[in-house]
Order: sequence, then structure tokens, then C-alpha cells
Amino acid sequence: MSVIKNDLKRPVRFTKPDRSKEHSMSEIKNDLLLKALRKEKVERPPVWMMRQAGRYLPDYIKLRDKYDFFTRVQTPELAADITLKPFHQIGVDAAIIFSDILVIPQAMGVEVLMEEGKGPSLPKSIKTQKDIDALNTNNVDEYLKYVFDALSLTKKELNGAVPLIGFAGAPWTIFCYMIEGKGSKTWDNAKQFAYTETELAHQLLQKITTITIDYLKAQTKAGADCVQVFDSWAGSLSPEDFKIFAQPYLLQIANAVKDFAPVILFPKGTWYALEDLSKSSASAIGIDWAVSPKQARALTNNNITLQGNFDPAKLLAPIPQIKKWVKEMIDDFGTQNYIANLGHGITPNVPVEHAKAFVEAVKEYQNQDLQN
Amino acid sequence: MSVIKNDLKRPVRFTKPDRSKEHSMSEIKNDLLLKALRKEKVERPPVWMMRQAGRYLPDYIKLRDKYDFFTRVQTPELAADITLKPFHQIGVDAAIIFSDILVIPQAMGVEVLMEEGKGPSLPKSIKTQKDIDALNTNNVDEYLKYVFDALSLTKKELNGAVPLIGFAGAPWTIFCYMIEGKGSKTWDNAKQFAYTETELAHQLLQKITTITIDYLKAQTKAGADCVQVFDSWAGSLSPEDFKIFAQPYLLQIANAVKDFAPVILFPKGTWYALEDLSKSSASAIGIDWAVSPKQARALTNNNITLQGNFDPAKLLAPIPQIKKWVKEMIDDFGTQNYIANLGHGITPNVPVEHAKAFVEAVKEYQNQDLQN
Repeated sequence: MSVIKNDLKRPVRFTKPDRSKEHSMSEIKNDLLLKALRKEKVERPPVWMMRQAGRYLPDYIKLRDKYDFFTRVQTPELAADITLKPFHQIGVDAAIIFSDILVIPQAMGVEVLMEEGKGPSLPKSIKTQKDIDALNTNNVDEYLKYVFDALSLTKKELNGAVPLIGFAGAPWTIFCYMIEGKGSKTWDNAKQFAYTETELAHQLLQKITTITIDYLKAQTKAGADCVQVFDSWAGSLSPEDFKIFAQPYLLQIANAVKDFAPVILFPKGTWYALEDLSKSSASAIGIDWAVSPKQARALTNNNITLQGNFDPAKLLAPIPQIKKWVKEMIDDFGTQNYIANLGHGITPNVPVEHAKAFVEAVKEYQNQDLQN
Repeated sequence: MSVIKNDLKRPVRFTKPDRSKEHSMSEIKNDLLLKALRKEKVERPPVWMMRQAGRYLPDYIKLRDKYDFFTRVQTPELAADITLKPFHQIGVDAAIIFSDILVIPQAMGVEVLMEEGKGPSLPKSIKTQKDIDALNTNNVDEYLKYVFDALSLTKKELNGAVPLIGFAGAPWTIFCYMIEGKGSKTWDNAKQFAYTETELAHQLLQKITTITIDYLKAQTKAGADCVQVFDSWAGSLSPEDFKIFAQPYLLQIANAVKDFAPVILFPKGTWYALEDLSKSSASAIGIDWAVSPKQARALTNNNITLQGNFDPAKLLAPIPQIKKWVKEMIDDFGTQNYIANLGHGITPNVPVEHAKAFVEAVKEYQNQDLQN
């Protein structure tokens, strides 16, 4: 029994991975990411890239042309294969499971359609108390079994080489899609709902939070060594509204999940929340390039590991320039309590060699340090 | 002789307004805006709304359905009529000339197409040194005569009731469109050009700056009592890149125009630049809602008049709620050295009564003050 509606081109073949063997963190050979999350000393910063398994990789494009979006997401072998590609091809220090933040609305019983190149749409957006009451928050284990299977399979394939990152969308961002029914520049409808049906909005945000906590915990049981919460549309809110509609739910998730695995919060565009979030149960905060590394360190009082914040558009510059900028970025963040990453997802037009150069530049930083 | 290519449905009728009579500021009856720009004491903050003559007004929709975009922009009677509507219908304390930031690329010899509801496109985007060399920076008086005629006509119709605001796009924002050739979420191509062809980028930015300065000066001669520079895409840049590609050109404009009329700079999404800009020749800085009024005052050391920053999405909330928020906003900014406005353009889905309520709430603030 599944509430997930999709347009599969072929039947989904579910694997039965062996979850009996627990993978402890000590088994991971390259545990730079986990060390940085625990604020332990590292010889160089770990590096990975948001959307590292995405459309800039020719091998991903081949799979995209063969299988539709939800087939890729819902077939553990495909999801695992896609997850592993950037580890093998780009040399990142972590794998992040290939999936989508909108599996949560699906698990709640809401239809999600994905048209290639057009973004998601949710034909039945949430409008009333009745709509909210009808949403499921239970049995995420069952509804999203394919994600956990993909994580277990990926974990097995990685064989402890690097950590595996799980993820979910943040409640405000999922709320935006569930109300708006599609992407938006301004999220007017989502905000109108939040501002006029405030009590209903909090009910919906709480429901999303509840199932997301279960979902992230289950991801850690299935093999995720840490998890990231993507609040892609947090920056559409004013500082005051972020504190009302986004921050409490992010904190709730960080509090509930922290004992299962380290949590990275990435509320894009919310420089104003950095101080508050640095005091949260999260192990790291992801930041975009609208805040400089030094500003971000100052705003967080050097209290928490930071992740980011290379402008993906800079990966379109010549390789020597990319390497120079990466060095400057690490100079400014410092090598400790830091995870090198982009400030947003890598874009499809980035040449693979440029993505590699970004990763190499972080790895080379170690040598420069040793030479000095 | 004109380089402007357009798709006029009917011939443009140019008026011959009388520019012989100079309008001094002292002639303006409601000069709250100009007082706020001069940091003079006001009995209440002035209020206007970005895009106040836009698609939320039914009378504008009627004209839009009758005349295409560039006909509306290039016909002084139409532009003046559209400019005056929100003054008459909504009661704002200033009129802002109806026009478009992309008249500057047009005056430089670049074709701009505007498809209703689809946004602008520039079929021949700038790619090479040759493209830049071919751009015109002279005779803005001639190429954009229709704007100056519209300003003179509006000024005459206003008869000194409220100030008239002129405007232009900021060099970085115009650069984005000229390189990208259309709107973009990420401005990847514009940034790639800036990062890889940096010298060419500065040549282009300087050319845009040069003609924009002439354009804004000419607007003040034609009747604009102050001017606003819209840097809508400034926030796509990191703090460091803003200082390289945006800020110097904004400062150049402010320096060159300040002796002709007060300048308002509105670089959206650049909270990090507020301190620097507060020390510029600008008379005010426009801010969006990603910075709180109190943060903005702190970042500018109370040194400059601030304009903003109501989230336009909040105009979709019930009227009593709008009025409550407006009061809180003014409480936080203070009544002096402040211009009440939105943090971005008003959206087409805002009910006219809600726009009126926003303006009324600012005007009512005075009474509350007097009662206390």
C-alpha cells in the first residue's frame, strides 16, 4: 500500500539490502566530514558539493534520458549508482543520497509531478483545515522504504570510504511547495496563507516537522552518517517571519535528530539568523555567498562549524581562477570547523573539469599549509 | 533618427511640453519625500510604493490591453497618465515616472523586446569587445526624448502637488540583462562574463554608467525632483564581488547626480553594503525585508535616510493586519529620515484596497503620534 503516485516507465525493482550490520563511524576511512562536524582537528577541510550528483555530470544525463525522475529516485540501484558517481568521478569527501525533498509531501499523501527541466508541481495544493487533517504523518518507514533501501545499498557500496549524507527539505520550504503547488519567485501564496491562516500554517508546518524527524532518524538507521536540512526558500522571509515560520521547526528537527547523527542546517539567504542558529543543536550551518566567510564567522561567534559558500557561477571561470578563489575562501574561513562546499547547488552548465578543480583546490590546501 | 526598435501598434504621438518654466522644490505642496531626503524634520514619513503604477491597478490593465508595452513607455501622454494614476487613486506622496530600466540598452543601440507576462529579451546579447565598442553612450537627450517629454508632461499635470521621481537601472543590473539577453534566476552568463572577461565587463559597466549619468541628469532637468537607481540583481553578487562590479558604479552615479537632485540607491539583497553606502553621496538607501529596520539603522549608523521595506506579500493579508504591520515598521524605523515603501515592487495580485490601506496606515501614523 503506497500513497505515492508516480509515472514510472517500468516497474520499480526493490532490493533487499542487509541492514543487520551496523556501520559505526569508526569504520569510515576518510572521516574528515564527520570530524569537522564534531569540531575535531582535521589536516584539511572536507569538501563536497550540493547537487554534486546533478546534471553537470554526463553519466547522470545518460540515466536521466533513460529513466524518468521518480524512477531514478525510487529505484534503489539507480539512486545508489547516481549517489556514488561524484565520489568516483570528482573525488568528493562525502556522498549525499540522490533523492528529492518532495518525497515528504508524497509520503504525506500529496501527489507530486516532476516534468524534466520544468520543476515540480503539486496539482492539489493545501488550502483548508480538511486538507491538513487528511495529511499522513505516520509510517514513513513504509512510504519511503526506497530511500532507506537506497541508503543501505549506497552505504554497502561505499564500504566505509567516505561518509554518507542523508537529507530532507526544511518545513518552511516544503510548506512553500505544498501551498503554492509549484515553484515561485516570491512564494506569494505560501506567504499569504502563513500571514492570514497563521494557525493552520503552524499546524501544517508541525505535521511536516513531525514526519521529517521520523524520516531523518530512519535515514540515519539506514546508513546516513549525518543529515542536511535544506531550507531553500528561508530567505524569502523577513528576519521576524523566519523566527515565526522557519526557525522553530529547524530547531525542533536539530534537537530531535542530533542524538542519531550530526545535523547540518542550510537556510539559504538568512544571514540574520546565523547567530541564533549557531547556538542550536545543529553541528554545522550551511551558508550562501551573500555573506562573506569572515562575516559568517563573526555572526556565529566562531561557535559552530560552517559549510559553504562558493558561488556556483564561479565554477564557470577558468580553472586557475577557481583554484585561487578556493584558496582565498579557505584562508577566510580557516581550515578548522569548516566544510568546503558551494553556496547553492552546482548548475548544469559547469564543466566536469571545473567541478574537479574545485575539489582538488580544497585538497591541495593541505600541502600549502604543510609547506609553510 | 532613432536606434530604438520597437513593435508599435500605432504611431507615437510626441507632445511638446513647455520646459521653459523651471519648477523649484519650493513649489511642491506636499514635499515630505524631499524633506526626508534632505533629512529635514517631517510630521510623518512620506510613502510611495515601488511599481505603484503597475498591474494591480485595474485602470492600468485597461491601458495594457489597449497599448503594447513600448507604446505605453514611449507615448508621453500614456506614460504620464499611468504615472499619475496611483497619485490620484492610492494617495501616495510621490509619483514615479512610468518607464523601464531597459530604455538604456535601447539608447545604447541594443534591441529590447518585451512580451507581455514573459519579461524582456535582448536578442543580440553582448559577447565581445566589438559588441561593446559598438555601443552608443551619447545623445541620450535625443534617444530617450520620450522619457523627458513624459516627465515634463507629468510635472505639469502634477502642478506641484507631490514630487516626481525619475529612475534608471543600476549598471550591474543593466549589465546582467545585456549579457544574459533575458531574465535569469542565477545570472550565470553575466557572472561568467564578469569573472572571465573582467576587463571587458568593466568597460561595459563604465559605458552603462556614463550614459546613465547623462540620462538621470536630463531627467532632473525635465522635471524629476529626485531619482532612484534600481540595482535589482545586486544581491546575486557576493559582498566582495558587489564591491568590484556594482558599488563603484553606484557611487559614481550618486556623485555625478547629487548636485542635480537627491539620489536614492536601491541595491536589493545587499545588506552587507549598507555601511559603505551610508557614507556615499546618495540621499537615501532602499532596503528589502531581508534586513530588519533596526538592523538597517544599526548597519548604517543612523547616518542616512532609509526607504522600505514592507514585504509586498504582506499586502495580501487582511487590512487590519497590514495596518498593524505598517505601524510596527514605522515604530522600528522611526518617523524621521525615513521613507515608507515596500521592499520590492508591488505584485499584480494585490487588491487595490490593500495598497490603499498601506498608504493610509502611514498617513495615520501621524495622528497616533499626536494623540500620544
